[in-house]
Amino acid sequence: MDSDRLLRELTEFLRIPSVSTLPAHNSDCRRAAEWVAAELRHVGCRDVQFLGSDTHPVVWGVGPQVPGAPTLLLYGHYDVQPPDPLEEWTAPPFAPTVRDGQLFARGAADDKGQVFCLLKAIESCGRPPVNFRFLIEGEEEYGSKVLFDVLRREPRRTQADAVLVADMAYVAPGWPAVYTALRGIAYAEITVRTAKSDLHSGEYGGAAPNAHEELCRLLGRLKGPDGKINVPGLYRSVQPPSKAERALWKQLPFKEREFLTRRVQAKALVGMKKYSVLERLWALPTFEIHGITGGFTGNGAKTVIPAEATAKVSLRLVPHQTLLTVERQLAAAVQRLVPKYVTATVHFLHGADPAVIEVNHPPFALLDRAFTEVVGRGTVAARAGGSIPVIPALRKSGAPVILTGIGLPDDRLHAPDEKLDLQQLWDGIRVFQRFYELLGKTSSRNGV
Amino acid sequence: MDSDRLLRELTEFLRIPSVSTLPAHNSDCRRAAEWVAAELRHVGCRDVQFLGSDTHPVVWGVGPQVPGAPTLLLYGHYDVQPPDPLEEWTAPPFAPTVRDGQLFARGAADDKGQVFCLLKAIESCGRPPVNFRFLIEGEEEYGSKVLFDVLRREPRRTQADAVLVADMAYVAPGWPAVYTALRGIAYAEITVRTAKSDLHSGEYGGAAPNAHEELCRLLGRLKGPDGKINVPGLYRSVQPPSKAERALWKQLPFKEREFLTRRVQAKALVGMKKYSVLERLWALPTFEIHGITGGFTGNGAKTVIPAEATAKVSLRLVPHQTLLTVERQLAAAVQRLVPKYVTATVHFLHGADPAVIEVNHPPFALLDRAFTEVVGRGTVAARAGGSIPVIPALRKSGAPVILTGIGLPDDRLHAPDEKLDLQQLWDGIRVFQRFYELLGKTSSRNGV
Repeated sequence: MDSDRLLRELTEFLRIPSVSTLPAHNSDCRRAAEWVAAELRHVGCRDVQFLGSDTHPVVWGVGPQVPGAPTLLLYGHYDVQPPDPLEEWTAPPFAPTVRDGQLFARGAADDKGQVFCLLKAIESCGRPPVNFRFLIEGEEEYGSKVLFDVLRREPRRTQADAVLVADMAYVAPGWPAVYTALRGIAYAEITVRTAKSDLHSGEYGGAAPNAHEELCRLLGRLKGPDGKINVPGLYRSVQPPSKAERALWKQLPFKEREFLTRRVQAKALVGMKKYSVLERLWALPTFEIHGITGGFTGNGAKTVIPAEATAKVSLRLVPHQTLLTVERQLAAAVQRLVPKYVTATVHFLHGADPAVIEVNHPPFALLDRAFTEVVGRGTVAARAGGSIPVIPALRKSGAPVILTGIGLPDDRLHAPDEKLDLQQLWDGIRVFQRFYELLGKTSSRNGV
Repeated sequence: MDSDRLLRELTEFLRIPSVSTLPAHNSDCRRAAEWVAAELRHVGCRDVQFLGSDTHPVVWGVGPQVPGAPTLLLYGHYDVQPPDPLEEWTAPPFAPTVRDGQLFARGAADDKGQVFCLLKAIESCGRPPVNFRFLIEGEEEYGSKVLFDVLRREPRRTQADAVLVADMAYVAPGWPAVYTALRGIAYAEITVRTAKSDLHSGEYGGAAPNAHEELCRLLGRLKGPDGKINVPGLYRSVQPPSKAERALWKQLPFKEREFLTRRVQAKALVGMKKYSVLERLWALPTFEIHGITGGFTGNGAKTVIPAEATAKVSLRLVPHQTLLTVERQLAAAVQRLVPKYVTATVHFLHGADPAVIEVNHPPFALLDRAFTEVVGRGTVAARAGGSIPVIPALRKSGAPVILTGIGLPDDRLHAPDEKLDLQQLWDGIRVFQRFYELLGKTSSRNGV
């Protein structure tokens, strides 16, 4: 493997600041899409299209025809999370750097590095052993709206014998995984308004309501210090993991102490203490505050009583919850919890239903074999705390979705110093190459 | 009075965005100081100096000598509050506009318009009737550090027979006032830290602590929904107003209903219900949140668990409380209220002790007479909810400090669409002209 060249190419991809949530980066998202399109042509796609958007297109590709071989749809995304807080990065987020065998950059693991891995594994095959299809999107970090629209209009794009999604991590170093469930997400802005405009805290302090105070009180009520979310009905459809699943999780190399000190890097874990940490992460909904705007946030001091304050928040949803219901429940809870003199609105920015994935289809066994041959251990079945909004839509044509990945648990996704372990990348290229070859030896069942 | 020329001159002053708290406006603050210096020369000052700072100097001036006449020190400030939220201004904050006899601009009432009024009243006198001294500072909205330093080094600058401060408002239209007390202020940034760096809410949500959640809970604990501030010891030295003062307040044309609907413009008043609104505003300490930083506050969505969050807050202090004690109490309360796994720090940005002012010195009677002659009603004694940090220092030489002003209660200080009623300005110029003349007929007692 010509690792120098590969690293150079991946670095080029990672240099593009394709932050989908910030309109200032629209042209960067387009550039990242073009980078992907060029790579698809490089692995033999004649039919490469930009679907659904000029700035955040879904890149569609059809690989060379391999008569009789199964069709494999590869999904991934070229957009990335915003890089702030910038000052906490050791090196700039869009100037990829290698330190101790780790490649540091925003998107290194989520998901450019993994898209790159899937594509370079095809290159390694020489002649493609299966019929490849590609759906590489540019809005995964912002709700996948474009891809959802495309798939609603053209559901046939997902027809395949299997769908392979590499946007995940090993459960621990040396422990590759396939995932049986993803949490969904409901992302919202909660705004409270207390007066017509901001007021002077000297003149009015003591008698005028303060939007930030009301917002803090509301947020404090929405989730207690015990980690319980105070949204009526929220836990109604939450189901505990099965005995079998619980037993399986106990065998995973997961230590709460190590999770706290090495990964969370805090003084304590929080949440609903009667559940194990893995249950809190994989089988329970969450409520998180991401940021608060309004009032005065510049340098120095301004003595203002804010009239309006907005919190960006999200709930993660677990299997059997549905996005629509949870959105309704949150909106109702907010109205119930604010005093009468406060006007509250809840605006939903994006969302995704949770996903449950069956992992007993034949291709899973082939991936297990590929991992065993290359890294010495097969895949374990785990759940994931994160969300990939489009997974339920990718399953609609009936093809099994294989959700796996080459990341490691300490890759710091969405956070400063996101990284990808280069050995994981080189191993991953060999694993997927082997998987494609094994799959190519089976015959198409769907006859796409 | 050549009101066209005066309006033109004031507009020039108001156009300068001299926001003292934002370093980006340092050169604007300097320009505003130069504007003041030119005006001082215009009213006959030969000795005009910039004291203590290149960017936010105290402008010192000594007017023409008037042998045997008393010395009057005029205090005011040329700096202004930040103008945000910009989108809530009808016209841009530094493009002064007149609508319905009101001059709209940041600083129109607080305090450029009032400094202007004091200076133009001297111009109207023709020959100055008293010995004028000037201390016009550029950091009143940011703790008056420069002026404090100057007065510590050179306390003689405050020597005078009286100090006149016009940075206040009438208690109601037609009701001029002098003020017997000002609240102090302790402005702080409270920062909580929960982990080494921001984390992905999918991967870690449910088990990792969230800085914003902890900050909201802390702020919710620091002040209850009943308006009581939960800082141990805070109310210990707070004294209720005297019976006489309470009786006087009852006679003021203050209606809680009107205060709510016309001035606060909210659905309800809040605070400690067992006290009257004027007591809450004038005789009780407050705790206000001004803004919260940290996490993700850009457009759109980022699913991050913030590791750090900071709230800008302030307490207003009432007579008999002291800044140093309240700062210590707040810092201790914060440490007491956060869980062990949260690291909290309190950083004090600026502060001021509260002030009590005796209003029975002879010059007060002269001002009362001037107001009676010009606007038909003398001054009532009121308290103020706001803070002017340097007032206690201005009183150190023993001269009585006359705290008054030409603003109106609905001038929207520190808020969008700050304004000055032009009739108040024209009246004010006549009032102060008359006051200077009356004072000139008395003789100096201090013999400065």
